[in-house]
This record gives sequence, structure tokens and C-alpha cells, in this order.
Amino acid sequence: MDYQYEDAVAILRRTPATLTSLLSGLPEAWTKSTEGPDTWSAFDIVGHLLHGEETDWLARTRVILEYGENRPFDSFNRTAMFEDYQGYSLDQLLAAFAQARAKNLTALDEIGITPEKLALTGAHPSLGMVTLSQLLSTWVVHDLNHIGQIVEVMSRQYAEAVGPWSIYLGILTRPIITE
Amino acid sequence: MDYQYEDAVAILRRTPATLTSLLSGLPEAWTKSTEGPDTWSAFDIVGHLLHGEETDWLARTRVILEYGENRPFDSFNRTAMFEDYQGYSLDQLLAAFAQARAKNLTALDEIGITPEKLALTGAHPSLGMVTLSQLLSTWVVHDLNHIGQIVEVMSRQYAEAVGPWSIYLGILTRPIITE
Repeated sequence: MDYQYEDAVAILRRTPATLTSLLSGLPEAWTKSTEGPDTWSAFDIVGHLLHGEETDWLARTRVILEYGENRPFDSFNRTAMFEDYQGYSLDQLLAAFAQARAKNLTALDEIGITPEKLALTGAHPSLGMVTLSQLLSTWVVHDLNHIGQIVEVMSRQYAEAVGPWSIYLGILTRPIITE
Repeated sequence: MDYQYEDAVAILRRTPATLTSLLSGLPEAWTKSTEGPDTWSAFDIVGHLLHGEETDWLARTRVILEYGENRPFDSFNRTAMFEDYQGYSLDQLLAAFAQARAKNLTALDEIGITPEKLALTGAHPSLGMVTLSQLLSTWVVHDLNHIGQIVEVMSRQYAEAVGPWSIYLGILTRPIITE
């Protein structure tokens, strides 16, 4: 499937409500637990998504549009949420994410994505040359990846509780998601 | 984390709204696409979840409570949805799932889950002896597993579109979920 603006935005627009349906009001035993050292809780992952809205996707889009490959993207701090949102409740994070996402989708709409713009290129600090189309596709898959990571970390809290059924539940046994 | 009725129901109760937020109204390019032969689309997965509500979780709970290990569970037909729900729209499947789940949670509440009941045992046709606690824990992880499978199959539609970013997106590169 090639990147199409309307298809992509259809997913991006739904993620805040999906996360709120999944997480809001859940016991912290589900939302604050990790899979072990150096892994993220659902709370951490929502913070990471919020940080991406605030610093990554739109900022890099603008760099491509304004500078092309002449100005490499700033590096994205994958763990900034551990400092930035320490005092937040999960509901505050979810609301901030919903607000930031809505604002970014409005900004993207105002930019007016065309096939010509999608072919423009930028310089990723480690991946090298990338297109705007690849950046905007990655925004979508990044959402889906982290929804997957949230259900994974929650499921692992019941890794023992399911007993012998674990052999039928790939989410419990495959290598964990760490990105 | 041990099985706790309230914690478990907190997840089970949220799944219909989560799936509706994620999927309702999405283009069929997202919801009807698979990852290749013998894999399931988001539409298929919602059908599988509905079939589980109709034939599996509550039925097996009742078998344990009424017969213990004397009557093995009926086998669960993992692919029944391909025949049972052929004419359904995705929104019809989502609504039927929400209704069936609500009915099952009411029934579970009426059963009144106690520590004594959780320790009761049944006979799984291939796994052997299982407890009610394990069955009810598996119901929760099964939901999370299939939410994970849905975001995975959708993400794979953009496996090429993300270009070099795929190396940072575990959801695109790990072995697919097939259960």
C-alpha cells in the first residue's frame, strides 16, 4: 500500500480515542507496570507518543519542506518522557496527546500534502536520505507499533496467570518490543 | 500479577470500545487486508473475537463449574468466522461483539467469581488440566493478543512505505502473529 494522505490521517485521527478507550480508568497494576528493567509501561508509552507530537513529526515535516537535505533532523529523544511528564496522571497524558495530535493534524492539513511534496527529501541523522512520504508513513506505523507495545506489556502481567495457554498466545512469548 | 476479577473485567469491558475507536469507519484498505495467505485481516480478527464470545469463554466457564474435569471442553474453531459472518459489515461485527461481550460480563458477574471457584479445574482437549483462573486470565490476554494482531496486520500494509525506518519498527519485522 502506498502512502495516501486520507488513509494515513484516518489512522492518526483515531489513535487518541483508541488509547483512551483502552487505558483510561484502568487499575495502575495494568498501566504502570513494565516487562522488566529498560522496558516501558503503558503510561511511559503514552508519554513517548506525546513527546513525538511535540517535537518530532511536524518538526521534521517542516525541516523537509524548508531545508530539504541541507539541514539534518534533530535527534529524537526516545526517553524524554521519563523527565518531561513525571507529575502527570495518565488521563492528563492522554488529554495532552489528544490535543497535540489534533493540532498537528490541523497543521498538516494546512500544509496541503501533494505528490510533489511527498517526494521531497530530508536527512535523517542515522538513516540518511528519507522522503516526506516515508516520514508520514512512519508516523502511522509508529502509532500502531506503540499500541501493540501497550497491549504487549499489559498482557505480560498475566504471563504466569494463563498457565498452559501461554503456548497459544504469541504476545506472551515472542521477543519484546523495545523501540 | 495474579488473576483478580475486577482487574480482569476492567480490560474485558474496554475491548469493544477500543476496537470501535480503532477500526470503525477506516478505509477497507486497512481493515480487509491480510499479511498474506493464511493470515487474518482486522475484519477477520473481530469476527474471531465475536465467535469466542458466542462459543468459548462463558461456555468453558460453565463446563468447569458444572462438570469439572469429567467433561473436556469442546474444541474451539479458530476459523469459524470465515463462514459465520460472511455477509456482515465491520460495524455490524463490532456491534455484535460489544453486545455479546456485555452479555457475557453480566453472566460472569451473576456467577459470582470466588477464590474457591477460581481453583476449580477443567479438561482442555489438548492442554490437559486447567483452572478456571487460567481460563479467565486467558480471556484477557486473548483480547490483548488480538488487538496486537490487528495493529500488526494494519502496520504491515505500510511495510514498504516507511522506507529505511522499518529497522526501528519491530511491528514490521518480527515474526507475525498467527494465533
